[in-house]
Order: sequence, then C-alpha cells, then structure tokens
Amino acid sequence: MATFFLREGEILRNNVEIVDVSLRDGIQNEKRTLSVDTKLELLKGIIGAGARRVEITSFVNPKKVPQMADAEEICARLPRDGMRYIGLVLNHRGFLRAQVAGVDEINYAIVLSDTFSQRNQGMTTEEGIAQWRDIAAGAKGRQKTNVTFAAGFGCPFEGEVPVSRLTWVLDKVMETAPDELTLADTIGVASPRDVTERVAAVRERYPDLPIRLHLHNTRNTGLANAWAGFEAGVRSFDAALGGVGGCPFAPRATGNVPSEDLVYMFERSGITTGYDLDKAIETAKALEEAVGHTVPGMLMKAGGFPKPQTA
Amino acid sequence: MATFFLREGEILRNNVEIVDVSLRDGIQNEKRTLSVDTKLELLKGIIGAGARRVEITSFVNPKKVPQMADAEEICARLPRDGMRYIGLVLNHRGFLRAQVAGVDEINYAIVLSDTFSQRNQGMTTEEGIAQWRDIAAGAKGRQKTNVTFAAGFGCPFEGEVPVSRLTWVLDKVMETAPDELTLADTIGVASPRDVTERVAAVRERYPDLPIRLHLHNTRNTGLANAWAGFEAGVRSFDAALGGVGGCPFAPRATGNVPSEDLVYMFERSGITTGYDLDKAIETAKALEEAVGHTVPGMLMKAGGFPKPQTA
Repeated sequence: MATFFLREGEILRNNVEIVDVSLRDGIQNEKRTLSVDTKLELLKGIIGAGARRVEITSFVNPKKVPQMADAEEICARLPRDGMRYIGLVLNHRGFLRAQVAGVDEINYAIVLSDTFSQRNQGMTTEEGIAQWRDIAAGAKGRQKTNVTFAAGFGCPFEGEVPVSRLTWVLDKVMETAPDELTLADTIGVASPRDVTERVAAVRERYPDLPIRLHLHNTRNTGLANAWAGFEAGVRSFDAALGGVGGCPFAPRATGNVPSEDLVYMFERSGITTGYDLDKAIETAKALEEAVGHTVPGMLMKAGGFPKPQTA
Repeated sequence: MATFFLREGEILRNNVEIVDVSLRDGIQNEKRTLSVDTKLELLKGIIGAGARRVEITSFVNPKKVPQMADAEEICARLPRDGMRYIGLVLNHRGFLRAQVAGVDEINYAIVLSDTFSQRNQGMTTEEGIAQWRDIAAGAKGRQKTNVTFAAGFGCPFEGEVPVSRLTWVLDKVMETAPDELTLADTIGVASPRDVTERVAAVRERYPDLPIRLHLHNTRNTGLANAWAGFEAGVRSFDAALGGVGGCPFAPRATGNVPSEDLVYMFERSGITTGYDLDKAIETAKALEEAVGHTVPGMLMKAGGFPKPQTA
C-alpha cells in the first residue's frame, strides 16, 4: 500500500491511506500505562477497522515517555500478515533499537524550530539533520524511511515557522532522500491555506517525494486541513482512533485527527479509505475505555449518516 | 455588508462575513432560559467581537421553544447602530410577528425532507413553499429575505436528501426569488464534497443568487465544510460563539460551527473576517458561563497562534 503523490497528468486517485498512530502519538501522553496485552488487543481492533500501516511505537527514553517503554516487547509480538509497522525515532540510538526490533519502516522526526527541537530531542535542528544522514545510511536497503517535519506549521515556543525554514531543512534532508516526507502540525496550529502552501512548496522542489500529513485537531481545523491536503494531492494521513493524542513536550497540544471522523469525511465525499466506519467506532470506544477518560472523537457520539427510519 | 457570490471574472474577495446565530440557533435548545438582559449583554460582546449581521431570535411557538418567547421584547431593545438583525420564521404567522417586531431581514426556513418538515414546522415541504410565496409578497420592499434550506444535506428521519430534491425545491422558491439562499446542514452530516456539489448546483441554475452556509460540527466536518464552501465561492457563514447549538426537533443535532474557531481558520489563511479573535473568545466564555455548561469551541481552550516566547 504505497503512498503516492499526484502529479499533473496522473489519474486522480480517489482513495486515501490512513496511517494509524493511535498506539504511538495517540497514547504516548496518557497517564495510565497500557499493558502490552491491552495494546495488542487494541491493535486487533485497529487492523479489523481497516488499518494496514500502523505507527506502533517510538524508540525513545522510557524515563521520558514511560508509555513507550515496551517498544521492543510489542514489536516482538506483532501480527505480521499484510501489515506494515512504523517505529518513530528521535535520534540515531533510537534508530538502532528500531532496526533490531524489526520494524518495517523508520519514521525519523526533525523539528523545524530549534527551541522545540532542543526540548523534544535535546539537539538543534541542524544536529537533527546530521543524525538523519547516519540513519539514512543505516536504513538503506533494509527499512523504508520517512522523515517527519515536526512543528511543521508553527512552534509552541518560537511561533511562526516560515516556509523558507521548511525548504531550507528540506533541501538538506533531500541530500539523502527519505522514501516519504511527513508534514506534521504537532501543535495543531495549521490552517487549510498553510497546508496548501507547504504541500506546494515541497512538491515544486521535489515532485517525486510522497507527502504524508500528520494533523492535530487542537484548534478545530484538523479535518479542514486534511481536506485541503487532499485537494492539494496528498493521499496519506496520520490519524488516531477517537482523536486521542498529545505531545509530552508541547504545551497544550491535543488530539490527533480522529480516524473515524476522517473516514466519515472522506467516505461521504466518495473517497475510499479502506476502513469500516462501524468497526473503527467500536475500536475507538475500546480505546476510550482503555485510557479511562472521554476522548474527542465525534463520530463515536453522533454515529454515521442517518439511516432512513420507517414510520 | 452585502453577501456576494462570486462569478468567473470577478475579483476574488478575500474576506468573509460571519453571521452570528449564537442567540438564536445557539441557545434555542438550552434548558436554562436566559433573560432579555443577559441576551442583550451577550449581544454587546457579539458586536464587540465584530459581528455586524446577527440572527437575533426566532418567531416560533413559545410553548415549543421557550427560549425564544421574548422575541418581541428583545427586538424592541436592540442597539441599532450599523447592525442588521435577522429574525427566523417557520411560517406566515411568524413572519407577521417578525415584521411587526421590526427585524431588518426575514429568514424563512423550508425543510427539504417532508418528515423533518412535519416535525419541525407541522407542514410538508410543498406547504412550506406555498407559505414562502405569501411571505415574499409581504416582505417585498420592506425586509430583505433569505430562504434557508433546512436538512439541506441530509435528514435525521429520511436519510439522504438528493441534490435533485434540493433543485426541485429551489426552482419553486425562485419563482419569487429571495435576496439570499442559505444551505443548512441542520444535523451536521455534510461532507466537503457535498458542499462543493450543492453550491455548484445552485450556482449553475441561479448564478446571481447569494449563498450562505449554515453548518453544524456534529461530525467534526464543520470547518472542513466551511473551507470547501469558501473554495466554492461562498463568502457568508453562520456561526455561534463557543459552538453552542442544537435543534429541538432533530435528534442528536449538536453545535453550530464555533465563530472563533472559524475566525482562526480564515484569518490564519489570510482571509479577513472583521472579527477580533480575543474578543470573540472572551464573549464565548461569557456565553459558556451564561448557559452553565462546557461548550465545544476549541480556540477557547487552545488559544490563538502561539506568540514567541523570550527565554
């Protein structure tokens, strides 16, 4: 299930890929630590709902993100059939762990603003780029790679992150090109026009580079941004069931776009997601129960498009 | 502050109009009845936030919608300076009341599905159209008129409302053309593509008819639908502070799109709304306090785009 990025002359693909990040970005900030068994049970639901590409964990300092302390254990017990698993890494050390753990894809985050980069992974953006070169070399021919531009639309500490900053980092990253680039609105500040503009900026420079969007719904613009991304040609979107999520190092960052809400928006727009809405809602409810508090997903409450009632 | 609908060759207007419906659709379903004084105090905040066109009340049966029982009283006490006030009516009787009360504009709702039309206003869609003819004749040269197509994207009882049904009603309504048409997603089921499609269907038939969108965020698609509307050329949007709202006759209908969230999305996209975000948030909080429960607006919680922090 490759991610394509459309170019002029291509037939417009009318389907999207939803990359499930429920068990990584979704729960990483939850106070209640979920057991490996619980996570694997939820994963069954996630797969049952239709996910085929899952960011399953991150290889980070377990003291800083206790929820991800079981990264190796969970990777050893994954159902493999037809699935592709992504491990998030924040440095070369995490990459080596991910490689040993046997993930299919490496997702390496580079933070576009120095202040947030220091807080998130203890290095400047340039140091982050330097580590990418080593990771790219180490993954070559072994794992697919994705680079995520964190704080890709704004920084909680510095505010604006100009497009010129994004393209400056991009040019350096592309010296050892990843298989895919994710533009991440880590703190949920993007507007639809930001998405249109930044996707175009990447596309102009690197028309063959597949683009994925990682959106948060902190300011109610998550689905609008996804729609703008779709209109700009993006066909791959991160999402978490129930809209769980939050970043431990970004103040007031809230949930990812809820997978089932995204499914509703796309499917009702005639765009195939490969998801089963009812099963997604069911698993979102199981996840809500597992974390032990109300989650922001709206389809869970409203239900799908109303069925005709017979009098 | 007229509402325009763009046509090919026109210069693209980069500003939108937000029509405030906080005190009508926003609170009509609230259990706690707000006093006229409270409403007028909130109205001050609404005007202070930037609203210049306000749907202030509805002229309906006070037994069915007790919150609107003060329609005449509130109309007698409105600050008039530079403001335009809209009264919602569901039948000819309500229209006569609105006219006597002295509103600037009449908003007449026609429900596109018969089942919901019966429940909402005790008549079929065709009977609703017949009353429109009398209202149009009565308002001519006295009040501006808007016709709202309620359940314009789906019906809680019948399910799908085909575009052909919309255009069938539209053609009949246009025999006595209103000044403006509102497409209302009363139960929050629309997708962005639905918006694009329905706006285009109206525009193809009646290119000079200004279109407004009334969107609910029941399924998290409210802002995406507004964005799709903007992209399709719509420049006028109903919204309620804090995203308050709900229809007494539509099961599980929830909040209008939150004004301040819409303001954020548009302004960060370089589109002028005439609103002051901070003042809108402040008034949304006052409204939240007045209704006495948490409201769904997200900017109220997250705040605007982060300001740079000095170390």
